Amino acid sequence: MNPMRLAFIQTSPRIGNTENNLSQAYNLIERVKEADLVVLPELFHSGYAVRSKDEAEFLSVSADEMSTPLAMAVDASRLFKMHVVAGFLERVKSDGLYNSAWLIGPDGIISKYRKVHLFNDEKDIFKPGDKPCDIVAIGGTSGARAAMQICFDWIFPEPWGLLAWGTGPGTGAQIIAHPANLVLPDACPLAIRARAMENRVYIVTAGRVGTDPGSEGEIEFRGGSRIVAPDGSILAAGHDNKIDCALVEINPAWADDKNITPRNNILEERFETQNGDQPSSKAASYDRKPKY
Amino acid sequence: MNPMRLAFIQTSPRIGNTENNLSQAYNLIERVKEADLVVLPELFHSGYAVRSKDEAEFLSVSADEMSTPLAMAVDASRLFKMHVVAGFLERVKSDGLYNSAWLIGPDGIISKYRKVHLFNDEKDIFKPGDKPCDIVAIGGTSGARAAMQICFDWIFPEPWGLLAWGTGPGTGAQIIAHPANLVLPDACPLAIRARAMENRVYIVTAGRVGTDPGSEGEIEFRGGSRIVAPDGSILAAGHDNKIDCALVEINPAWADDKNITPRNNILEERFETQNGDQPSSKAASYDRKPKY
Repeated sequence: MNPMRLAFIQTSPRIGNTENNLSQAYNLIERVKEADLVVLPELFHSGYAVRSKDEAEFLSVSADEMSTPLAMAVDASRLFKMHVVAGFLERVKSDGLYNSAWLIGPDGIISKYRKVHLFNDEKDIFKPGDKPCDIVAIGGTSGARAAMQICFDWIFPEPWGLLAWGTGPGTGAQIIAHPANLVLPDACPLAIRARAMENRVYIVTAGRVGTDPGSEGEIEFRGGSRIVAPDGSILAAGHDNKIDCALVEINPAWADDKNITPRNNILEERFETQNGDQPSSKAASYDRKPKY
Repeated sequence: MNPMRLAFIQTSPRIGNTENNLSQAYNLIERVKEADLVVLPELFHSGYAVRSKDEAEFLSVSADEMSTPLAMAVDASRLFKMHVVAGFLERVKSDGLYNSAWLIGPDGIISKYRKVHLFNDEKDIFKPGDKPCDIVAIGGTSGARAAMQICFDWIFPEPWGLLAWGTGPGTGAQIIAHPANLVLPDACPLAIRARAMENRVYIVTAGRVGTDPGSEGEIEFRGGSRIVAPDGSILAAGHDNKIDCALVEINPAWADDKNITPRNNILEERFETQNGDQPSSKAASYDRKPKY
Protein backbone atom coordinates (compact mmCIF):
# COMPACT_ATOMS: atom_id res chain seq x y z
CA MET A 1 0.00 0.00 0.00
CA ASN A 2 1.15 3.44 -0.99
CA PRO A 3 -0.95 5.70 1.21
CA MET A 4 -2.07 9.17 0.31
CA ARG A 5 -3.85 11.86 2.27
CA LEU A 6 -6.97 13.58 1.01
CA ALA A 7 -8.62 16.61 2.55
CA PHE A 8 -11.56 18.87 2.00
CA ILE A 9 -11.95 22.34 3.36
CA GLN A 10 -15.44 23.77 3.79
CA THR A 11 -15.51 27.56 3.92
CA SER A 12 -18.14 30.26 4.34
CA PRO A 13 -17.42 32.74 1.56
CA ARG A 14 -19.07 36.15 1.37
CA ILE A 15 -20.01 37.31 -2.07
CA GLY A 16 -17.36 39.67 -3.38
CA ASN A 17 -15.33 39.71 -0.15
CA THR A 18 -12.36 37.98 -1.65
CA GLU A 19 -10.00 38.97 1.13
CA ASN A 20 -12.16 37.19 3.71
CA ASN A 21 -12.70 34.26 1.38
CA LEU A 22 -9.01 33.72 0.66
CA SER A 23 -7.75 34.08 4.21
CA GLN A 24 -10.43 31.73 5.47
CA ALA A 25 -9.46 29.18 2.83
CA TYR A 26 -5.76 29.54 3.59
CA ASN A 27 -6.27 29.16 7.32
CA LEU A 28 -8.19 25.95 6.79
CA ILE A 29 -5.60 24.60 4.35
CA GLU A 30 -2.99 25.11 7.08
CA ARG A 31 -5.04 22.88 9.34
CA VAL A 32 -4.78 20.00 6.83
CA LYS A 33 -1.28 20.80 5.61
CA GLU A 34 -0.21 17.14 5.72
CA ALA A 35 -2.60 16.43 2.86
CA ASP A 36 -1.37 15.38 -0.56
CA LEU A 37 -4.53 16.68 -2.21
CA VAL A 38 -6.83 19.37 -0.79
CA VAL A 39 -10.18 20.21 -2.34
CA LEU A 40 -11.79 23.65 -1.88
CA PRO A 41 -15.36 24.66 -2.71
CA GLU A 42 -16.76 25.82 -6.03
CA LEU A 43 -16.19 29.55 -6.68
CA PHE A 44 -14.30 29.70 -3.42
CA HIS A 45 -12.77 33.14 -3.94
CA SER A 46 -15.77 35.04 -5.31
CA GLY A 47 -18.76 33.55 -3.53
CA TYR A 48 -21.63 31.98 -5.45
CA ALA A 49 -24.59 34.24 -6.14
CA VAL A 50 -23.17 37.05 -8.23
CA ARG A 51 -25.92 39.56 -8.88
CA SER A 52 -25.00 40.44 -12.44
CA LYS A 53 -22.66 39.55 -15.23
CA ASP A 54 -20.77 42.77 -14.51
CA GLU A 55 -20.16 41.71 -10.93
CA ALA A 56 -19.08 38.28 -12.16
CA GLU A 57 -16.64 39.90 -14.61
CA PHE A 58 -15.28 42.04 -11.81
CA LEU A 59 -14.69 39.01 -9.57
CA SER A 60 -13.39 36.73 -12.30
CA VAL A 61 -9.82 35.57 -12.72
CA SER A 62 -7.91 34.33 -15.73
CA ALA A 63 -5.81 31.20 -15.92
CA ASP A 64 -3.23 33.25 -17.83
CA GLU A 65 -2.33 35.66 -15.07
CA MET A 66 -1.31 35.18 -11.46
CA SER A 67 -4.37 36.54 -9.64
CA THR A 68 -4.48 36.62 -5.86
CA PRO A 69 -6.73 33.53 -5.54
CA LEU A 70 -4.51 31.54 -7.86
CA ALA A 71 -1.37 32.77 -6.08
CA MET A 72 -2.81 31.68 -2.73
CA ALA A 73 -3.40 28.16 -4.06
CA VAL A 74 0.03 27.96 -5.70
CA ASP A 75 1.69 29.22 -2.52
CA ALA A 76 -0.11 26.61 -0.44
CA SER A 77 0.88 23.93 -2.91
CA ARG A 78 4.56 24.97 -2.73
CA LEU A 79 4.73 25.48 0.99
CA PHE A 80 2.86 22.33 2.00
CA LYS A 81 3.94 20.14 -0.93
CA MET A 82 0.39 19.36 -1.89
CA HIS A 83 -1.96 19.55 -4.82
CA VAL A 84 -4.93 21.88 -4.57
CA VAL A 85 -8.25 21.65 -6.41
CA ALA A 86 -10.43 24.74 -6.15
CA GLY A 87 -13.37 26.31 -7.92
CA PHE A 88 -12.59 29.53 -9.80
CA LEU A 89 -14.80 32.08 -11.49
CA GLU A 90 -12.84 31.95 -14.72
CA ARG A 91 -12.66 34.68 -17.35
CA VAL A 92 -11.52 33.67 -20.80
CA LYS A 93 -10.58 36.65 -22.94
CA SER A 94 -12.89 37.26 -25.92
CA ASP A 95 -14.92 34.19 -24.93
CA GLY A 96 -16.76 34.52 -21.63
CA LEU A 97 -17.05 33.35 -18.06
CA TYR A 98 -16.88 29.77 -16.82
CA ASN A 99 -17.56 28.03 -13.54
CA SER A 100 -14.24 26.21 -13.42
CA ALA A 101 -12.11 23.96 -11.26
CA TRP A 102 -8.35 24.00 -11.50
CA LEU A 103 -5.91 21.42 -10.25
CA ILE A 104 -2.92 23.34 -8.96
CA GLY A 105 0.60 22.26 -8.14
CA PRO A 106 3.79 24.09 -7.06
CA ASP A 107 4.36 25.35 -10.60
CA GLY A 108 0.81 26.57 -11.22
CA ILE A 109 -2.23 25.15 -12.96
CA ILE A 110 -1.90 21.51 -14.00
CA SER A 111 -5.42 20.83 -15.25
CA LYS A 112 -8.55 22.88 -15.93
CA TYR A 113 -12.16 21.72 -16.05
CA ARG A 114 -15.15 23.89 -16.92
CA LYS A 115 -18.49 22.89 -15.40
CA VAL A 116 -20.56 21.19 -18.09
CA HIS A 117 -23.92 21.14 -16.28
CA LEU A 118 -24.84 24.65 -15.17
CA PHE A 119 -27.40 24.88 -12.38
CA ASN A 120 -30.46 27.02 -12.95
CA ASP A 121 -29.59 30.74 -13.16
CA GLU A 122 -25.89 30.05 -13.53
CA LYS A 123 -26.91 29.89 -17.18
CA ASP A 124 -27.25 33.69 -17.15
CA ILE A 125 -23.65 34.16 -16.07
CA PHE A 126 -21.57 31.28 -17.34
CA LYS A 127 -20.99 29.42 -20.55
CA PRO A 128 -21.11 25.63 -20.13
CA GLY A 129 -17.91 23.68 -20.52
CA ASP A 130 -17.83 21.55 -23.65
CA LYS A 131 -15.06 19.12 -22.79
CA PRO A 132 -14.72 16.28 -20.30
CA CYS A 133 -12.13 16.66 -17.58
CA ASP A 134 -8.65 15.27 -18.17
CA ILE A 135 -7.32 12.50 -15.93
CA VAL A 136 -4.07 13.71 -14.42
CA ALA A 137 -1.28 11.89 -12.58
CA ILE A 138 -0.49 13.75 -9.41
CA GLY A 139 3.05 12.80 -8.64
CA GLY A 140 5.43 12.20 -5.80
CA THR A 141 5.85 9.00 -3.89
CA SER A 142 2.16 8.92 -3.12
CA GLY A 143 1.03 9.39 -6.70
CA ALA A 144 -2.46 8.86 -7.95
CA ARG A 145 -4.68 9.66 -10.91
CA ALA A 146 -7.16 12.44 -10.28
CA ALA A 147 -9.96 14.23 -12.13
CA MET A 148 -12.58 16.85 -11.34
CA GLN A 149 -16.31 17.42 -11.48
CA ILE A 150 -18.16 20.50 -10.21
CA CYS A 151 -21.28 20.63 -8.01
CA PHE A 152 -24.43 19.89 -10.10
CA ASP A 153 -22.43 17.51 -12.29
CA TRP A 154 -23.22 15.05 -9.48
CA ILE A 155 -26.62 14.21 -10.92
CA PHE A 156 -25.29 12.97 -14.27
CA PRO A 157 -23.74 9.50 -13.97
CA GLU A 158 -22.00 9.11 -17.32
CA PRO A 159 -19.11 11.60 -16.95
CA TRP A 160 -18.14 10.00 -13.62
CA GLY A 161 -18.10 6.59 -15.26
CA LEU A 162 -15.94 7.82 -18.12
CA LEU A 163 -13.46 9.40 -15.71
CA ALA A 164 -13.28 6.18 -13.68
CA TRP A 165 -12.82 4.13 -16.84
CA GLY A 166 -10.31 6.36 -18.66
CA THR A 167 -9.13 4.35 -21.65
CA GLY A 168 -9.26 1.02 -19.83
CA PRO A 169 -8.02 -0.74 -16.69
CA GLY A 170 -5.40 1.18 -14.74
CA THR A 171 -5.92 4.46 -16.61
CA GLY A 172 -9.02 5.97 -15.00
CA ALA A 173 -9.19 8.49 -12.20
CA GLN A 174 -8.78 6.95 -8.74
CA ILE A 175 -9.88 10.18 -7.07
CA ILE A 176 -12.54 12.60 -8.30
CA ALA A 177 -12.29 16.04 -6.70
CA HIS A 178 -15.66 17.75 -6.53
CA PRO A 179 -15.82 21.43 -5.54
CA ALA A 180 -19.45 22.29 -4.78
CA ASN A 181 -21.88 24.84 -3.32
CA LEU A 182 -24.82 22.72 -2.16
CA VAL A 183 -28.24 24.01 -1.23
CA LEU A 184 -30.00 20.67 -0.77
CA PRO A 185 -28.63 19.02 2.35
CA ASP A 186 -29.25 15.41 1.37
CA ALA A 187 -29.25 14.98 -2.39
CA CYS A 188 -25.61 15.28 -3.44
CA PRO A 189 -24.10 13.67 -0.33
CA LEU A 190 -26.28 10.63 -1.00
CA ALA A 191 -25.68 10.53 -4.73
CA ILE A 192 -21.89 10.75 -4.52
CA ARG A 193 -21.90 7.61 -2.40
CA ALA A 194 -23.63 5.92 -5.33
CA ARG A 195 -21.12 7.49 -7.77
CA ALA A 196 -18.29 6.10 -5.64
CA MET A 197 -19.84 2.61 -5.48
CA GLU A 198 -20.80 2.37 -9.13
CA ASN A 199 -17.30 3.47 -10.22
CA ARG A 200 -15.24 2.25 -7.27
CA VAL A 201 -13.41 5.56 -6.90
CA TYR A 202 -12.64 7.96 -4.08
CA ILE A 203 -14.64 11.18 -4.19
CA VAL A 204 -13.86 14.38 -2.31
CA THR A 205 -16.74 16.86 -2.26
CA ALA A 206 -15.88 20.27 -0.79
CA GLY A 207 -18.99 22.30 -0.02
CA ARG A 208 -19.58 25.62 1.69
CA VAL A 209 -21.82 27.02 4.39
CA GLY A 210 -23.26 30.46 5.05
CA THR A 211 -25.61 32.48 2.89
CA ASP A 212 -25.55 34.61 -0.24
CA PRO A 213 -28.19 37.24 -0.96
CA GLY A 214 -30.43 36.01 -3.77
CA SER A 215 -33.12 37.66 -5.90
CA GLU A 216 -35.78 35.75 -3.94
CA GLY A 217 -34.29 35.97 -0.46
CA GLU A 218 -31.17 34.49 1.02
CA ILE A 219 -29.62 31.38 -0.43
CA GLU A 220 -28.49 29.06 2.33
CA PHE A 221 -25.64 26.66 1.67
CA ARG A 222 -25.67 23.40 3.53
CA GLY A 223 -22.12 22.12 3.70
CA GLY A 224 -22.26 18.58 2.39
CA SER A 225 -18.49 18.06 2.22
CA ARG A 226 -17.57 14.40 2.09
CA ILE A 227 -14.68 12.05 1.50
CA VAL A 228 -16.11 8.78 0.23
CA ALA A 229 -14.35 5.46 -0.40
CA PRO A 230 -14.69 3.16 -3.43
CA ASP A 231 -17.28 1.08 -1.55
CA GLY A 232 -19.44 4.15 -0.92
CA SER A 233 -18.56 4.39 2.77
CA ILE A 234 -18.15 7.85 4.26
CA LEU A 235 -14.58 8.49 5.45
CA ALA A 236 -15.22 12.09 6.52
CA ALA A 237 -18.21 14.43 6.55
CA GLY A 238 -18.33 18.21 6.92
CA HIS A 239 -20.56 19.99 9.39
CA ASP A 240 -23.98 21.08 8.04
CA ASN A 241 -23.62 24.74 8.95
CA LYS A 242 -20.09 25.47 10.17
CA ILE A 243 -16.77 25.91 8.43
CA ASP A 244 -14.89 22.67 8.64
CA CYS A 245 -12.08 20.56 7.25
CA ALA A 246 -11.03 16.92 7.34
CA LEU A 247 -8.03 14.84 6.42
CA VAL A 248 -8.02 11.09 5.75
CA GLU A 249 -5.42 8.60 4.63
CA ILE A 250 -6.44 6.50 1.67
CA ASN A 251 -5.01 3.79 -0.56
CA PRO A 252 -5.41 4.89 -4.20
CA ALA A 253 -4.75 1.32 -5.39
CA TRP A 254 -8.13 0.30 -3.94
CA ALA A 255 -9.71 2.35 -6.71
CA ASP A 256 -7.96 0.20 -9.31
CA ASP A 257 -9.78 -2.88 -8.05
CA LYS A 258 -13.08 -2.73 -9.90
CA ASN A 259 -14.19 -6.20 -8.74
CA ILE A 260 -17.16 -5.95 -6.42
CA THR A 261 -17.19 -9.76 -6.41
CA PRO A 262 -14.51 -12.17 -7.68
CA ARG A 263 -16.51 -12.44 -10.89
CA ASN A 264 -17.87 -8.93 -11.30
CA ASN A 265 -15.52 -6.25 -12.62
CA ILE A 266 -18.17 -3.58 -12.75
CA LEU A 267 -16.39 -1.21 -15.14
CA GLU A 268 -15.47 -3.93 -17.62
CA GLU A 269 -19.05 -5.20 -17.51
CA ARG A 270 -20.31 -1.68 -18.04
CA PHE A 271 -18.04 -0.61 -20.87
CA GLU A 272 -17.36 -3.90 -22.60
CA THR A 273 -18.57 -4.71 -26.08
CA GLN A 274 -20.01 -8.03 -27.07
CA ASN A 275 -18.17 -8.31 -30.36
CA GLY A 276 -14.66 -8.90 -29.12
CA ASP A 277 -13.45 -5.28 -29.19
CA GLN A 278 -10.82 -4.38 -26.68
CA PRO A 279 -12.37 -2.83 -23.59
CA SER A 280 -10.45 0.38 -24.24
CA SER A 281 -12.50 0.95 -27.35
CA LYS A 282 -15.68 1.27 -25.32
CA ALA A 283 -14.88 4.76 -24.11
CA ALA A 284 -15.04 5.74 -27.75
CA SER A 285 -18.62 4.56 -28.01
CA TYR A 286 -19.48 6.83 -25.08
CA ASP A 287 -17.60 9.65 -26.79
CA ARG A 288 -20.16 9.63 -29.55
CA LYS A 289 -22.52 11.23 -27.10
CA PRO A 290 -21.56 14.84 -27.52
CA LYS A 291 -21.28 15.93 -23.94
CA TYR A 292 -19.45 13.00 -22.48
CA MET B 1 -53.53 14.03 -10.57
CA ASN B 2 -54.31 10.50 -11.57
CA PRO B 3 -53.20 8.46 -8.58
CA MET B 4 -51.91 4.94 -8.70
CA ARG B 5 -50.99 2.48 -5.99
CA LEU B 6 -47.66 0.70 -5.86
CA ALA B 7 -46.71 -2.12 -3.54
CA PHE B 8 -43.82 -4.38 -2.78
CA ILE B 9 -44.00 -7.69 -1.03
CA GLN B 10 -40.92 -9.00 0.75
CA THR B 11 -40.98 -12.75 1.28
CA SER B 12 -38.72 -15.35 2.87
CA PRO B 13 -38.45 -18.11 0.27
CA ARG B 14 -36.90 -21.48 1.03
CA ILE B 15 -34.82 -22.97 -1.71
CA GLY B 16 -36.87 -25.48 -3.63
CA ASN B 17 -39.92 -25.25 -1.38
CA THR B 18 -42.13 -23.72 -4.00
CA GLU B 19 -45.35 -24.47 -2.15
CA ASN B 20 -44.22 -22.41 0.83
CA ASN B 21 -42.81 -19.72 -1.42
CA LEU B 22 -45.98 -19.33 -3.45
CA SER B 23 -48.44 -19.36 -0.56
CA GLN B 24 -46.34 -16.84 1.33
CA ALA B 25 -46.27 -14.58 -1.72
CA TYR B 26 -50.00 -14.92 -2.31
CA ASN B 27 -50.85 -14.18 1.31
CA LEU B 28 -48.81 -10.99 1.18
CA ILE B 29 -50.33 -9.95 -2.14
CA GLU B 30 -53.74 -10.24 -0.50
CA ARG B 31 -52.60 -7.73 2.11
CA VAL B 32 -51.89 -5.14 -0.60
CA LYS B 33 -54.74 -6.11 -2.88
CA GLU B 34 -55.71 -2.48 -3.54
CA ALA B 35 -52.44 -2.03 -5.42
CA ASP B 36 -52.36 -1.35 -9.15
CA LEU B 37 -48.84 -2.74 -9.42
CA VAL B 38 -47.26 -5.24 -7.02
CA VAL B 39 -43.59 -6.17 -7.17
CA LEU B 40 -42.31 -9.51 -5.83
CA PRO B 41 -38.69 -10.54 -5.23
CA GLU B 42 -36.23 -11.99 -7.70
CA LEU B 43 -36.58 -15.78 -8.15
CA PHE B 44 -39.53 -15.65 -5.76
CA HIS B 45 -40.85 -19.14 -6.45
CA SER B 46 -37.58 -21.11 -6.46
CA GLY B 47 -35.39 -19.37 -3.91
CA TYR B 48 -32.00 -17.98 -4.81
CA ALA B 49 -29.04 -20.23 -4.17
CA VAL B 50 -29.69 -23.25 -6.34
CA ARG B 51 -26.93 -25.77 -5.71
CA SER B 52 -26.54 -27.02 -9.26
CA LYS B 53 -27.70 -26.46 -12.78
CA ASP B 54 -29.78 -29.61 -12.46
CA GLU B 55 -31.61 -28.22 -9.46
CA ALA B 56 -32.09 -24.95 -11.31
CA GLU B 57 -33.53 -26.84 -14.31
CA PHE B 58 -35.85 -28.71 -12.00
CA LEU B 59 -37.14 -25.50 -10.41
CA SER B 60 -37.33 -23.51 -13.64
CA VAL B 61 -40.50 -22.47 -15.41
CA SER B 62 -41.20 -21.57 -19.01
CA ALA B 63 -43.03 -18.51 -20.26
CA ASP B 64 -44.79 -20.79 -22.75
CA GLU B 65 -46.66 -22.93 -20.26
CA MET B 66 -48.90 -22.12 -17.31
CA SER B 67 -46.71 -23.22 -14.40
CA THR B 68 -47.96 -22.94 -10.83
CA PRO B 69 -45.91 -19.78 -10.05
CA LEU B 70 -47.14 -18.07 -13.19
CA ALA B 71 -50.72 -19.19 -12.52
CA MET B 72 -50.52 -17.72 -9.01
CA ALA B 73 -49.45 -14.35 -10.40
CA VAL B 74 -52.07 -14.38 -13.16
CA ASP B 75 -54.77 -15.36 -10.66
CA ALA B 76 -53.77 -12.51 -8.35
CA SER B 77 -53.77 -10.12 -11.27
CA ARG B 78 -57.30 -11.19 -12.31
CA LEU B 79 -58.78 -11.33 -8.85
CA PHE B 80 -57.35 -8.07 -7.56
CA LYS B 81 -57.29 -6.19 -10.87
CA MET B 82 -53.59 -5.47 -10.60
CA HIS B 83 -50.35 -5.91 -12.47
CA VAL B 84 -47.72 -8.14 -10.95
CA VAL B 85 -43.97 -8.03 -11.50
CA ALA B 86 -42.08 -11.03 -10.17
CA GLY B 87 -38.74 -12.72 -10.64
CA PHE B 88 -38.85 -16.14 -12.32
CA LEU B 89 -36.23 -18.80 -12.83
CA GLU B 90 -36.90 -19.02 -16.55
CA ARG B 91 -36.19 -22.00 -18.79
CA VAL B 92 -36.00 -21.34 -22.50
CA LYS B 93 -36.18 -24.53 -24.53
CA SER B 94 -32.95 -25.39 -26.38
CA ASP B 95 -31.36 -22.21 -25.06
CA GLY B 96 -30.82 -22.17 -21.33
CA LEU B 97 -31.81 -20.66 -18.01
CA TYR B 98 -32.34 -16.98 -17.28
CA ASN B 99 -32.84 -14.92 -14.17
CA SER B 100 -35.95 -13.15 -15.42
CA ALA B 101 -38.66 -10.73 -14.40
CA TRP B 102 -42.09 -10.88 -15.95
CA LEU B 103 -44.76 -8.22 -15.93
CA ILE B 104 -48.05 -10.06 -15.61
CA GLY B 105 -51.62 -8.96 -16.22
CA PRO B 106 -55.00 -10.74 -16.16
CA ASP B 107 -54.30 -12.35 -19.51
CA GLY B 108 -50.81 -13.55 -18.72
CA ILE B 109 -47.30 -12.27 -19.39
CA ILE B 110 -47.17 -8.76 -20.84
CA SER B 111 -43.43 -8.14 -20.81
CA LYS B 112 -40.30 -10.19 -20.10
CA TYR B 113 -36.87 -9.00 -19.04
CA ARG B 114 -33.81 -11.17 -18.56
CA LYS B 115 -31.19 -9.98 -16.07
CA VAL B 116 -28.28 -8.51 -17.98
CA HIS B 117 -25.79 -8.21 -15.11
CA LEU B 118 -25.40 -11.59 -13.41
CA PHE B 119 -24.00 -11.49 -9.88
CA ASN B 120 -20.97 -13.62 -9.12
CA ASP B 121 -21.79 -17.37 -9.24
CA GLU B 122 -25.10 -16.76 -10.97
CA LYS B 123 -22.84 -16.96 -14.03
CA ASP B 124 -22.59 -20.73 -13.50
CA ILE B 125 -26.36 -21.15 -13.74
CA PHE B 126 -27.80 -18.45 -15.94
CA LYS B 127 -27.18 -16.93 -19.32
CA PRO B 128 -27.12 -13.11 -19.23
CA GLY B 129 -29.93 -11.26 -20.94
CA ASP B 130 -28.85 -9.47 -24.08
CA LYS B 131 -31.70 -7.01 -24.52
CA PRO B 132 -32.84 -3.93 -22.60
CA CYS B 133 -36.25 -4.10 -20.98
CA ASP B 134 -39.27 -2.84 -22.90
CA ILE B 135 -41.26 0.11 -21.58
CA VAL B 136 -44.86 -0.99 -21.21
CA ALA B 137 -48.08 0.95 -20.68
CA ILE B 138 -49.98 -0.62 -17.82
CA GLY B 139 -53.54 0.37 -18.43
CA GLY B 140 -56.73 1.24 -16.70
CA THR B 141 -57.75 4.63 -15.41
CA SER B 142 -54.58 4.82 -13.39
CA GLY B 143 -52.29 3.96 -16.27
CA ALA B 144 -48.56 4.45 -16.25
CA ARG B 145 -45.46 3.39 -18.14
CA ALA B 146 -43.41 0.73 -16.39
CA ALA B 147 -40.19 -1.18 -16.94
CA MET B 148 -38.07 -3.67 -15.00
CA GLN B 149 -34.53 -4.19 -13.75
CA ILE B 150 -33.32 -7.08 -11.60
CA CYS B 151 -31.20 -6.94 -8.43
CA PHE B 152 -27.50 -6.35 -9.31
CA ASP B 153 -28.54 -4.24 -12.30
CA TRP B 154 -28.77 -1.49 -9.65
CA ILE B 155 -25.06 -0.73 -9.86
CA PHE B 156 -25.07 0.13 -13.57
CA PRO B 157 -26.57 3.58 -14.19
CA GLU B 158 -26.97 3.61 -17.96
CA PRO B 159 -29.85 1.13 -18.39
CA TRP B 160 -31.92 3.02 -15.81
CA GLY B 161 -31.32 6.26 -17.70
CA LEU B 162 -32.32 4.71 -20.99
CA LEU B 163 -35.53 3.33 -19.48
CA ALA B 164 -36.37 6.73 -17.98
CA TRP B 165 -35.64 8.47 -21.28
CA GLY B 166 -37.39 6.02 -23.65
CA THR B 167 -37.37 7.70 -27.04
CA GLY B 168 -37.83 11.18 -25.64
CA PRO B 169 -40.08 13.21 -23.35
CA GLY B 170 -43.27 11.45 -22.29
CA THR B 171 -42.17 8.03 -23.52
CA GLY B 172 -39.88 6.74 -20.75
CA ALA B 173 -40.77 4.51 -17.84
CA GLN B 174 -42.36 6.37 -14.92
CA ILE B 175 -41.98 3.35 -12.68
CA ILE B 176 -39.12 0.86 -12.62
CA ALA B 177 -39.98 -2.39 -10.86
CA HIS B 178 -36.93 -4.03 -9.34
CA PRO B 179 -37.19 -7.59 -8.01
CA ALA B 180 -34.10 -8.29 -5.91
CA ASN B 181 -32.40 -10.65 -3.43
CA LEU B 182 -30.03 -8.38 -1.52
CA VAL B 183 -27.18 -9.52 0.70
CA LEU B 184 -25.63 -6.10 1.42
CA PRO B 185 -27.99 -4.19 3.69
CA ASP B 186 -27.03 -0.67 2.61
CA ALA B 187 -25.67 -0.60 -0.91
CA CYS B 188 -28.69 -1.07 -3.16
CA PRO B 189 -31.18 0.81 -0.97
CA LEU B 190 -28.86 3.81 -1.12
CA ALA B 191 -28.09 3.52 -4.81
CA ILE B 192 -31.69 3.25 -5.94
CA ARG B 193 -32.38 6.60 -4.29
CA ALA B 194 -29.69 8.02 -6.57
CA ARG B 195 -31.20 6.16 -9.57
CA ALA B 196 -34.57 7.71 -8.73
CA MET B 197 -33.11 11.24 -8.39
CA GLU B 198 -30.91 11.12 -11.47
CA ASN B 199 -33.80 9.84 -13.61
CA ARG B 200 -36.76 11.30 -11.73
CA VAL B 201 -38.66 8.02 -11.71
CA TYR B 202 -40.43 5.90 -9.13
CA ILE B 203 -38.59 2.73 -8.19
CA VAL B 204 -40.04 -0.30 -6.40
CA THR B 205 -37.43 -2.70 -5.09
CA ALA B 206 -38.82 -5.96 -3.70
CA GLY B 207 -36.23 -7.84 -1.66
CA ARG B 208 -36.35 -10.96 0.45
CA VAL B 209 -35.25 -12.06 3.90
CA GLY B 210 -34.19 -15.39 5.38
CA THR B 211 -31.26 -17.58 4.41
CA ASP B 212 -30.24 -19.99 1.70
CA PRO B 213 -27.58 -22.66 2.21
CA GLY B 214 -24.45 -21.67 0.28
CA SER B 215 -21.20 -23.45 -0.55
CA GLU B 216 -19.39 -21.31 2.04
CA GLY B 217 -22.04 -21.22 4.75
CA GLU B 218 -25.47 -19.65 4.87
CA ILE B 219 -26.31 -16.72 2.65
CA GLU B 220 -28.32 -14.17 4.60
CA PHE B 221 -30.70 -11.91 2.71
CA ARG B 222 -31.27 -8.47 4.14
CA GLY B 223 -34.62 -7.24 2.90
CA GLY B 224 -33.97 -3.84 1.39
CA SER B 225 -37.41 -3.42 -0.18
CA ARG B 226 -38.15 0.20 -0.98
CA ILE B 227 -40.60 2.43 -2.79
CA VAL B 228 -38.75 5.58 -3.79
CA ALA B 229 -40.12 8.77 -5.34
CA PRO B 230 -38.66 10.78 -8.27
CA ASP B 231 -36.88 13.08 -5.79
CA GLY B 232 -35.16 10.13 -4.13
CA SER B 233 -37.29 10.23 -1.01
CA ILE B 234 -38.26 6.93 0.58
CA LEU B 235 -42.04 6.34 0.46
CA ALA B 236 -41.90 2.90 2.06
CA ALA B 237 -39.16 0.63 3.39
CA GLY B 238 -39.26 -3.08 4.16
CA HIS B 239 -38.07 -4.58 7.41
CA ASP B 240 -34.43 -5.73 7.48
CA ASN B 241 -35.15 -9.29 8.58
CA LYS B 242 -38.90 -9.97 8.53
CA ILE B 243 -41.37 -10.65 5.76
CA ASP B 244 -43.14 -7.42 4.98
CA CYS B 245 -45.24 -5.52 2.47
CA ALA B 246 -46.18 -1.90 1.81
CA LEU B 247 -48.64 0.02 -0.33
CA VAL B 248 -48.33 3.67 -1.33
CA GLU B 249 -50.31 5.99 -3.55
CA ILE B 250 -48.25 7.80 -6.14
CA ASN B 251 -48.74 10.25 -8.99
CA PRO B 252 -47.08 8.81 -12.11
CA ALA B 253 -47.20 12.23 -13.79
CA TRP B 254 -44.57 13.45 -11.35
CA ALA B 255 -42.12 11.17 -13.15
CA ASP B 256 -42.81 13.02 -16.41
CA ASP B 257 -41.48 16.25 -14.90
CA LYS B 258 -37.76 15.97 -15.43
CA ASN B 259 -37.07 19.54 -14.30
CA ILE B 260 -35.14 19.58 -11.05
CA THR B 261 -35.04 23.39 -11.43
CA PRO B 262 -37.03 25.60 -13.81
CA ARG B 263 -34.01 25.60 -16.11
CA ASN B 264 -32.66 22.07 -15.65
CA ASN B 265 -34.43 19.24 -17.42
CA ILE B 266 -31.97 16.62 -16.34
CA LEU B 267 -32.82 13.99 -18.95
CA GLU B 268 -32.73 16.43 -21.86
CA GLU B 269 -29.41 17.78 -20.61
CA ARG B 270 -28.11 14.24 -20.32
CA PHE B 271 -29.24 12.87 -23.64
CA GLU B 272 -29.20 15.96 -25.83
CA THR B 273 -26.79 16.45 -28.69
CA GLN B 274 -25.03 19.70 -29.39
CA ASN B 275 -25.48 19.63 -33.13
CA GLY B 276 -29.19 20.27 -33.34
CA ASP B 277 -30.35 16.67 -33.50
CA GLN B 278 -33.72 15.94 -31.99
CA PRO B 279 -33.43 14.72 -28.42
CA SER B 280 -34.99 11.42 -29.45
CA SER B 281 -31.93 10.62 -31.53
CA LYS B 282 -29.76 10.49 -28.42
CA ALA B 283 -31.09 7.15 -27.31
CA ALA B 284 -29.62 5.79 -30.53
CA SER B 285 -26.16 6.92 -29.54
CA TYR B 286 -26.53 4.96 -26.32
CA ASP B 287 -27.76 1.96 -28.31
CA ARG B 288 -24.36 1.69 -29.90
CA LYS B 289 -23.10 0.43 -26.61
CA PRO B 290 -23.89 -3.26 -26.99
CA LYS B 291 -25.45 -3.95 -23.64
CA TYR B 292 -27.61 -0.92 -23.29
